[in-house]
Parts: sequence; structure tokens; C-alpha cells
Amino acid sequence: MTSTYIVFVGTFVHLPRSTSNALAIQQGALWVSTADGRIKGTDWTVVTEGDLRALLKEKSWIPEDAPRYKSGTRVKIVQAREEQNEFFFPGFIDTHIHAPQYPNNGLFGSTTLLDWLKEYTFPMEASFGSSLANIPSPRAYRVYNQVVSRTLANGTTFASYFATIHVSATNLLAALCKKRGQRALIGRVCMDNPNFSEPYYIDPSAKESIELNKEVISYIQSIDPQGTLIKPIITPRFALTCTPKAMQGLADLAAAYEPPLHIQTHISENTLEIDDVRSQFPAAKSYADVYDTYGLLTPRTILAHGVHLSPDEQDLIHHRGAKISHCPASNSALGSGICPVRKLLDKGITVGLGTDVSGGYSPSILEAVRQACLVSRLLRHVGTANETDDGKKLVLSVEEALYLATRGGAAVVNMEDDIGGFDVGMLWDAQLIHLGRFLPACKYDNGNSQVDVFGWETWQEKVHKWVWSGDDRNVKSVWVGGNLVYGKDDGDDGRRSGWWSWVLSAGVVGVGAVVAFRRMRL
Amino acid sequence: MTSTYIVFVGTFVHLPRSTSNALAIQQGALWVSTADGRIKGTDWTVVTEGDLRALLKEKSWIPEDAPRYKSGTRVKIVQAREEQNEFFFPGFIDTHIHAPQYPNNGLFGSTTLLDWLKEYTFPMEASFGSSLANIPSPRAYRVYNQVVSRTLANGTTFASYFATIHVSATNLLAALCKKRGQRALIGRVCMDNPNFSEPYYIDPSAKESIELNKEVISYIQSIDPQGTLIKPIITPRFALTCTPKAMQGLADLAAAYEPPLHIQTHISENTLEIDDVRSQFPAAKSYADVYDTYGLLTPRTILAHGVHLSPDEQDLIHHRGAKISHCPASNSALGSGICPVRKLLDKGITVGLGTDVSGGYSPSILEAVRQACLVSRLLRHVGTANETDDGKKLVLSVEEALYLATRGGAAVVNMEDDIGGFDVGMLWDAQLIHLGRFLPACKYDNGNSQVDVFGWETWQEKVHKWVWSGDDRNVKSVWVGGNLVYGKDDGDDGRRSGWWSWVLSAGVVGVGAVVAFRRMRL
Repeated sequence: MTSTYIVFVGTFVHLPRSTSNALAIQQGALWVSTADGRIKGTDWTVVTEGDLRALLKEKSWIPEDAPRYKSGTRVKIVQAREEQNEFFFPGFIDTHIHAPQYPNNGLFGSTTLLDWLKEYTFPMEASFGSSLANIPSPRAYRVYNQVVSRTLANGTTFASYFATIHVSATNLLAALCKKRGQRALIGRVCMDNPNFSEPYYIDPSAKESIELNKEVISYIQSIDPQGTLIKPIITPRFALTCTPKAMQGLADLAAAYEPPLHIQTHISENTLEIDDVRSQFPAAKSYADVYDTYGLLTPRTILAHGVHLSPDEQDLIHHRGAKISHCPASNSALGSGICPVRKLLDKGITVGLGTDVSGGYSPSILEAVRQACLVSRLLRHVGTANETDDGKKLVLSVEEALYLATRGGAAVVNMEDDIGGFDVGMLWDAQLIHLGRFLPACKYDNGNSQVDVFGWETWQEKVHKWVWSGDDRNVKSVWVGGNLVYGKDDGDDGRRSGWWSWVLSAGVVGVGAVVAFRRMRL
Repeated sequence: MTSTYIVFVGTFVHLPRSTSNALAIQQGALWVSTADGRIKGTDWTVVTEGDLRALLKEKSWIPEDAPRYKSGTRVKIVQAREEQNEFFFPGFIDTHIHAPQYPNNGLFGSTTLLDWLKEYTFPMEASFGSSLANIPSPRAYRVYNQVVSRTLANGTTFASYFATIHVSATNLLAALCKKRGQRALIGRVCMDNPNFSEPYYIDPSAKESIELNKEVISYIQSIDPQGTLIKPIITPRFALTCTPKAMQGLADLAAAYEPPLHIQTHISENTLEIDDVRSQFPAAKSYADVYDTYGLLTPRTILAHGVHLSPDEQDLIHHRGAKISHCPASNSALGSGICPVRKLLDKGITVGLGTDVSGGYSPSILEAVRQACLVSRLLRHVGTANETDDGKKLVLSVEEALYLATRGGAAVVNMEDDIGGFDVGMLWDAQLIHLGRFLPACKYDNGNSQVDVFGWETWQEKVHKWVWSGDDRNVKSVWVGGNLVYGKDDGDDGRRSGWWSWVLSAGVVGVGAVVAFRRMRL
């Protein structure tokens, strides 16, 4: 029977909306409507199994597996087991990821941005094309399925994807996100400027680039008319690969919809790139000014990187309400530099995290959290900063980095009222984290995660251990809009108890009886 | 029957001794004597199963599971399976790790070195003491067992451990390394200076510190008289925690043995620490000069960190032949800075990698390899460097970082002729890395590693993917001195073939017959 609610029970960890530097750690019950996937209520006094029974009774709820003759509103119960150090955490939001580059994860050698694009990235992206109209290359099926599955397995419930210039492959990515249940923005990449693009991988013209974009937008809006799960995003690659005509046309295209479409691009990642932008747009005051000139800086624009923005550019971005996707793993891997996140936040700019696969080498936002913490601790040694109070101020705490990965990302994609936390009314985009009990590392088993909880840790310490040592092995289940999209939803893992377990027990006894009977017949 | 040799067959990847910037990728067979654990020979023409049979025949070798009546030298065969993207790689060498700090992995908040020591580290280390003479605290058993097992599971075949000030717990760590088969240097930490140490965690006097060290040395030499697997190492914590009398006494103690004992300490990790050393030793020319004054800079000395060494200090360290343990994860986590490894190498200084658990948050040297690559790519943004050829020169390639993790570490612990590579005559300290075939990421399975090999990659690319996405899940087996110390040694994983498989098949048929017979009786 279908449940009306899912009741989640156990420890809930999230970042309060009001402050980015503390964990909210709450224990009890929280329920989600299966109709709209939103959190309908909480009861933080549920501690014991008796408390849970009392809550069910008070609400006239019965477990979904109760006998058919029982009357009441059916609910499914999912528990985070305290003794297994399990907790619910908001799903991660990846505000910048290139889906077709996924097979290149870890392949960048000692290159930096501009040679990396030509040596590794453009050839890979070009291979997603196909000589058959409307049929993506075989590689697209394999890679896009893997990247959606892998990011879900790493707890990413929302991703803002760059695809390639190919319409059919981009549409496939959109369809796969919808099928697998991942919330996503899907962008067909636009690049029509032969000055930087390669002849084998380029839009034929600005006009055609915009027309091809319209095809993708209309496909996405046809398979998800309300944009419940997936939406199109206008995606000029970056200033060097786009003509002014294309940039202006794309900005106009985004503005032609109501509400206007999201826009994503790159900005100020690498100092050589910045020099080239200066040469290519001599009239512009700055890199940010190029985008502003062509109408691309909007409150629905995601700018990836922003490593070397001048104070004036930061002000401009803030005034336009555009957002920044901080991609620390990528910025270190390609030697781009360290984004001064604290300064952006102090300016009032909204910041989220991105994996930037495959400039970044990992599909995991947890890795982005770690790298955001690490590079912020090195900022004091960069440029004019030194180890003073000022250096300390640049440091992002673990809590702040987790805020960027959830609430921050939600605000970057203009969904701060819907996702990123466990406030009543929000969508249940969440992950169940399993740290497990302490087990002696065994000679023949490497299936356990690297998180060792010895037993004396506080919940805050457990969360810190997860951040620094955790990986996909700790992601037990993932939900998007109340739907289970990864893992198992029986939080009990066979440890069923309470009065509804008799149904299961009766079944086991029944099977036992049949087996016994058959043996007797033999 | 005991085998005389183990024959390893498949792909072998290591760093050639002569150059640090290229992978040696060789395919064929390599054999190790079980008597002394050393590589006795190689045959790089073995490609097919027929080639392997021919080699066995030529050498008069027979598989260890051949029938008893067969005569010949028995050998065990271990295969790295090509179709599973498996390869042999030298064991990792962790040149700096604090075993008792392991439970604090991931717990450091936003502290830097000096407050981190007082807030997290000293309380944890102090808890390894016991009021019962010669009986370590219960925590010591649990933690030391875990850290040895975890590091082995991550492919660390050699570790240079800092323990605590407690003799019995330090002896336990030594005994556990020997028992689990990990090659190790074991150091009882010396800290007798009340200026910086805490009253609850300090040696009573320089004299007693040295006496207690002698106890540990004699214990270790009693359980491994030849130092085949474990050896003592003299371990003054660092300049601020040691009196001049203790430092000089410890240097004398090291020198009193033949060969002299190894020495390990910390140097120039954090700028505030350096300021304090300057105040505490006003007569010294530099931090390095403090150690040199008291005789601690020797060719068998491991200096952890060396982040902010002046050119004069680098020269001094080079002239004394002391080595540097580069601990990038720790240096980022505690905001210490970035060690300019290239400059140290250019001076001729020997450099290896250290996890520095728990300043570093991970027991994995593979993570240290990643972090060494990442921070070297940020060096161009630190201080006076900028993105010029000079900035590029500071970058460590993946190959160079792997060199530091193997050959470099071996040289740091003065075992460059014995471990760190696959040269004939060297000890078989090695790991079998399993990347696996491409599998679509599945909704209900997170046991697979994060390394996705799509099938078109070169061996070099596979190694890079392992470096950037690999973890303990990719470590299938680990050997030290030819002994299997982690995982399974049947490289075949049930895929037995060739003429010796008939023994196994016959066994299966036999069991099948017995089962069939019993069923008939029923």
C-alpha cells in the first residue's frame, strides 16, 4: 500500500539557515509527504520506541506493512540507527560539473587551464557527437549514466551540468537525470568563437548556437513541463570561446522565458586566461564587465571559479546578484589559485561548491568540502596575507564548508527556500550517512569505510570525522523530493522491532513451516 | 608444502631509480625467494600462459599445489590480472606518522600547530599512559592495532612511528608491527621542557627521558635482534619541548650504537613555532642550527615538514645528510604552509612523504601523493613566485610524487638499496592494486572503488586515475619481505587455469560425488 508520509527517525544534522558556522544536531522524528516530497512536520521529543508509537497513535498513523484490515493513514518509517552512528544530512548541491569530462577524472598531468582544455577536454567532449542526427554517440550513454549514478552515490541530489555542444547527447543527459531522479540544471555548451575553440569542436555560428539551444530547452521542457526535477540552463562556455553576438543572443534567450532561465559560465579562473580576455575584449573594464556588457550577469547566473576577481568585479557581481561556484579541487589541480571565499562572502556574494569534474578529479562534493577547508587554510600564505588575525579570518570552518555544500549551493541555484536544509516546508533532498560502529581493521576486508568512530566522540566530532575520512561508502541512502534515488530505504537493516515486526516474523515462521513440511514428506 | 619462490606474474609499475619523472611499466614474471624475501630474478618475455609454463619448465619449478609425487622446486604463483586492471606497485613508505594520534584523524577544527597540540594532541597522547607499570592503557591496544592494520590496508609497508612518552605502550606498538608484519621505526617521544610541554604529559627530566628510551631500545632489539622488521628511532619531539641537555643526550645515545640509531623530529612547520624557537634559543643561527648544535642532524635523521626553511638551513641539512619528510595533508590542514619540495630536491636533499597522522587527516600515503601534487600546483601563487616558467618548475608531477612515496621514502630511511622499487636484489615490499573492470554504478552497491576505467586508457592513465580516485578499496594484497601481510594472495580469485588446476577440479568432483551419494541414500 502506498504511504501518505515517510517518517524519518533518528539524528538529523544540517546547517541552520541563519548562521553558517554551527551544526544543528537534532534528534527525533521528521515526516515527509509522499505527494509533494516536502517536510510536513517534526517532533523533537521522540527518543524511545515508545515515543514513536505514541506519535503514530496521536496522528492516527499506521505502518505501511500493518495488516490490511487496520485503518489509519499509512506511513513508512525510516530510521537512522544511533548505535551505527547514522544520521540524516541534506543532499549535496554541485553547482558546477561537466558531465562529459567524467572519464577524464584524474587525467590532467601537469597542465593548466588553457593547455588542459586543448589537450584533454575538447577531444573528450567532441567524442560525444554522432554522425547520426538525434542519436548520441555510444559513449554518451555509458558516460552520462555513470556520472549521474556516481554523483547520486556520493550524495549529490542537485547538479548544475555542463554537457557538450551536441543536442542529442545533451537531451540524453536530461532524460537520464529525470529517470534516475536527480535534480539538475542541464546546459548545452555554446562556443562559436574560432579564436579559441578548435575547428573540430565548435558551433557553426552564433545564430545556430542559439537555435540549437532552443531545441534543448524545448526538449527539457517537454519531458518536465513544470521543471519539477530538471530545467535547462543557458551555458556560454566562457568569454574566450564565445563571440559577442552569441553572448548577447544567449542573454536575450534566457530573458525571454518567465521566469528567466538560469545562466552558467566560467570567470577569472586562471591568470593567463584573464590576460587573454583582456586582449580579446580591449574595451571591457574587466572580465566581469565582459559578461555584464552582454547581459549575462543576472540573479540567476552561476559563475564558476572567480579565483582572481578584482574588488570592482566582486562589487559588480554582487550588485547584479550573480552567484559564485567555488571549485577548490579543480583550482588546485590545474594550479589556478585559491578563491578568497571569505572576501566574497563578506561582500554579500552567494557562494556554493562545485566539483568541476574533470578540472576537479572527483565527483564528490564531500571532497570539495575538504578541499575548500584546506585551501582556505593556505590563503594566509598567498599574496599579501600573512599569519595574523587576518590569515585566521580567511579560514573556512568545517561547518562553513558544509554550509556552502548545502544551503550555499541551494541559494546559488535560487532554491534556498526549497532545498539545502531540513526546515519544515522544504523538499526532502537528503542522504542517510552511515559511519558504522568501530570494527578492528581486518586482514581480509577492505569494504569498511575509513571513518573510525571509537565511541567517545561527540556528534560534532563524528561529523568532522565523516568530512575528513568519509567517502561514498558512508552514503547509505539518498532521496530527492522524498523519492529514494540511491541505496536502500529500510533504515532498520533487518533489525526490525516494535509491534509491526510480527508481520515479518509470521512470514518467517510460515516459510519455516513449509520447509519443515516438505522435509517431512521426503 | 612450502614454496621456495613466489612467482609474480602480470604488470609491474614502479619508479626507476635513475629518474623520478617517469613510470617504469613492465610486464612478465618476477620471482622472490621465500627464504629472504628478496627479488631473485625477472623475465619480461612472459606474456602468455604458455610463456609461464615454459619458464617453470626451464627452471624446473612446479606449482606448490602440484601432486606430492612430482619433483622439482615448489613455487607459488600470484597473478595480477590484466583484464581486471591489476598491477603490482612498491609498498608505500610513510616517513612520518604519530600512531597514538590516530583517533584524532579529522579532529582539528580551525586550529594551527601550537594550539592544536595543546587542545587535541597532548590530551590524546597522555591517555596512552597507565598507572600500572609495564601495562599499556586499554586504549593503546585498540588504537595501535587499528593504526597498524589501517596503514597496511592502505599499502604502507614501512612506517616511521612517533609513539608517546610511555615505555610500555611504545613497546606494544613495536610488538604489533612485528606481529602484523609491517616494517617500522618505533620512537618513544621525548619531551622534558616544561616551557612548552604540559604538566600532565612530560618526561620528569632529561636524564630519565634518556633512560626510558634505553628501555624501549633494548625491548625492540630483544624482539627483533637483527632489526629485520622493526628498529628503534630516537625521537625528540621538537625543539620547543626538549631541553638542550635532553637533545644532546639523545644525540649521544643514537651515536652510541653501531650503526648509529635513526633520529626523527619536527622542523620549521609553522611560522609562530619558528618565532618561539628563535626566542627559546637566542644564540642559535636558525631552527636547523639548534638541532645541529646538539648533534641531531645526521645522515640518519628524519626532519618532518621543513616548510619554511631558509636557504642556509637547507644547505646545512644537505651538508649533514639529514632527510625531509614532506607532509602536505598536514601542512594544509593546520594551515602551516607549502613546503617547496622542488627547491629541496634541487639542493640535493632527500625527500619522502609522510601522512603526519593526525595533523594530517588520513592514514593513506596515496592521499599524501595527491596532496603533494595539489599543493605544488599552488606554490606559484605563494610568496614571490608567479605563473611563469618558474611557477611551472615548482609543480610535482604524479610520477614525481609517487617517486617520493616509494624510492624517496626508502632513501629517507636509508633503505634505498632494499625497498621502494622492483630491482633485482631488493626486498619484496609491494602491493597488488586492483582497479577492476568498468561496472555501471549501481543503485544498491557502493562497494566498488571510485576508479572508473572505461577501457581505452593507457597504463600510465590507469595509474593516474588510481592516484586521483583510488583508496584502500583498490589495495588487494600487501607483502612485506615476501610475506603476505594484508589481503589474499591468490591473484587468480578463483579463475584458476592451466594444468595444475586439475587438482582443484578433482577435489570439487570428489565433493560433488559425496554429496550425490548422500542424497541417494536419503
